[in-house]
Amino acid sequence: MDLDRVADNYAALRRALPVAQIYYAVKANPAAAILRLLAGKGSRFDAASLQEIEACLAAGAGAGDISFGNTVKKPGAIAAAHAYGVPLFAFDSIEELEKIARFAPGAKVYCRIAVNNDGAEWPLSRKFGTTIARAKELMLAAPRLGLQAHGLSFHVGSQQTHPEAYELAIAEVATVFTDLKAQGVQLKMLNLGGGFPVRYQEDVPETDAFGTAIMDAMVTHFGNDLPEMLIEPGRAMVGNAGVVAAEVVLVCRRIEEDPRRWVYLDIGRFGGLAETEGEAIKYRITAAGHGGAAGPVVLAGPSCDGVDVMYEKTPYALPLDLAAGERVLIHDAGAYVTSYASQNFNGFTPLAEHYL
Amino acid sequence: MDLDRVADNYAALRRALPVAQIYYAVKANPAAAILRLLAGKGSRFDAASLQEIEACLAAGAGAGDISFGNTVKKPGAIAAAHAYGVPLFAFDSIEELEKIARFAPGAKVYCRIAVNNDGAEWPLSRKFGTTIARAKELMLAAPRLGLQAHGLSFHVGSQQTHPEAYELAIAEVATVFTDLKAQGVQLKMLNLGGGFPVRYQEDVPETDAFGTAIMDAMVTHFGNDLPEMLIEPGRAMVGNAGVVAAEVVLVCRRIEEDPRRWVYLDIGRFGGLAETEGEAIKYRITAAGHGGAAGPVVLAGPSCDGVDVMYEKTPYALPLDLAAGERVLIHDAGAYVTSYASQNFNGFTPLAEHYL
Repeated sequence: MDLDRVADNYAALRRALPVAQIYYAVKANPAAAILRLLAGKGSRFDAASLQEIEACLAAGAGAGDISFGNTVKKPGAIAAAHAYGVPLFAFDSIEELEKIARFAPGAKVYCRIAVNNDGAEWPLSRKFGTTIARAKELMLAAPRLGLQAHGLSFHVGSQQTHPEAYELAIAEVATVFTDLKAQGVQLKMLNLGGGFPVRYQEDVPETDAFGTAIMDAMVTHFGNDLPEMLIEPGRAMVGNAGVVAAEVVLVCRRIEEDPRRWVYLDIGRFGGLAETEGEAIKYRITAAGHGGAAGPVVLAGPSCDGVDVMYEKTPYALPLDLAAGERVLIHDAGAYVTSYASQNFNGFTPLAEHYL
Repeated sequence: MDLDRVADNYAALRRALPVAQIYYAVKANPAAAILRLLAGKGSRFDAASLQEIEACLAAGAGAGDISFGNTVKKPGAIAAAHAYGVPLFAFDSIEELEKIARFAPGAKVYCRIAVNNDGAEWPLSRKFGTTIARAKELMLAAPRLGLQAHGLSFHVGSQQTHPEAYELAIAEVATVFTDLKAQGVQLKMLNLGGGFPVRYQEDVPETDAFGTAIMDAMVTHFGNDLPEMLIEPGRAMVGNAGVVAAEVVLVCRRIEEDPRRWVYLDIGRFGGLAETEGEAIKYRITAAGHGGAAGPVVLAGPSCDGVDVMYEKTPYALPLDLAAGERVLIHDAGAYVTSYASQNFNGFTPLAEHYL
């Protein structure tokens, strides 16, 4: 991991959306070196668990700069976060709201709304978020439960390549601000989530393009009365700062008539490359020091598990003379890799991490 | 994990196939307590990595009782296994065979043949195994490379519910023994792999039924001239010996018109339940201490990842009054759970293990 690159990404995100508070999505890479760097630059933090909150505090973040962004939290985790002084809690159901009211009385809450994830390469399914209508009811319930009805959030899906996805979502949630104001509840904050993409193999819009699209939509729908804006970049903060150095374990042909070689690496779907499930995230992969011609390959992991195959449908090419023992580089693998690695799958030790 | 149950399973497998040597597939659960128990009973071990070999040795297994069963191995791992005295190595390509010849000269090798995986709930894809024709060429090449052409293996797929799958595979590979004998190479061993199923929600044939089907097929195709027989049970040795005690983190309704509640547990696809991918393995799940009526649920994990949903299509029912903080039991989860758990996904600590 190249920490200078993380610093550059933080600066680029600040420039693209200067009015927004940045809450780094810790789950993308919870390494202490990254949390310390970002805390030093004044970043805030979006935490998925009590352990992530504690990692932020240990790295020098103030509790007041942490949002507990998981809509699904254990009572004990809510109580502990509240005791640390974490002010901000996400929810998307009455059950979770009641839990927060009980274990973090008086806290600021924001309701997550499910929005269209078209254009996202790692969409978020029906697991999270509620409807516009239900969000209004829930935000009206919050003050009755002794909570501060602070704002709303949405998530357009991870590795979102369409700036318009944010525009559409902003248009939708803005109506909740208006409707609730008419009912006497003034929301103060809009959390735009993360999803900002990394360039893997295909070009993606620049961070600035997302900033422009977001600000245009905010001004269109909120005018001069902008709420506090939060963004939760994870992938965009650390994705392009990491490279995995993998070793080729075996290169062989499987089927006579198939021109593709099978290349087995010492990392696979259970060693950290979980986002290759369904071949969703297509990392750029190169073999260092090879000048010759390349040919088609299937890429698989080192384990005895049949599903531990990264790319069988996506066309990948690697040098024709690539051999076992050589190194390939998996680029832009700084997000959602290290922490996903299985602790002891097939006896393999999780990948070693180096922060430079 | 109930170690007595593991001992019972070992005894049942011995009874079902008394002529076969049992090589426990360590990857199913590499806990030291299990390896020590099985080593004490005279079990042998099928290892997927050098680390698994070292775990077996540390548990009291002799190196001579270990098979290095992964067909994809690093040169250093082959050399270290050879130095420890591991005698038996799997392969399925000329490239791997040449690697074994170089780093474990004189070793016994067996060639893995790809067979039909119909009937398996966790099939093994095209990642492993070669054709009958290619296996013959490779076994003829082995002695030329200074290796002992020891035998063949196949794998009918994990959680294989059809005893006939073994019969068909035995019929196929028996032809290789005959053909190679005619060419002066006498194979000594047939490794029947694993795949023996565990009863999750549906009844599966008893271990004895697999034993009978296998022995009938062996006698049909080999007559009195039976080769050494190996089996590599993993799931069947430990699957029904484990139970995961999970906590309910949230129960809520997502969509008005959908009668299903979403039940979020503190374990999910990245916390150890990796085999719920594609809803392949359908664990039996119960809520202790509830007597009342049950209703339909979707089951999801605790993380912020949208794919961390275990069962959305498979019908599951849990008590209507199930609430956050309560416990559910995930039964027969002794195989392929603990070691799959991510080391730090969303900050969650891997599940605690207890061996009784």
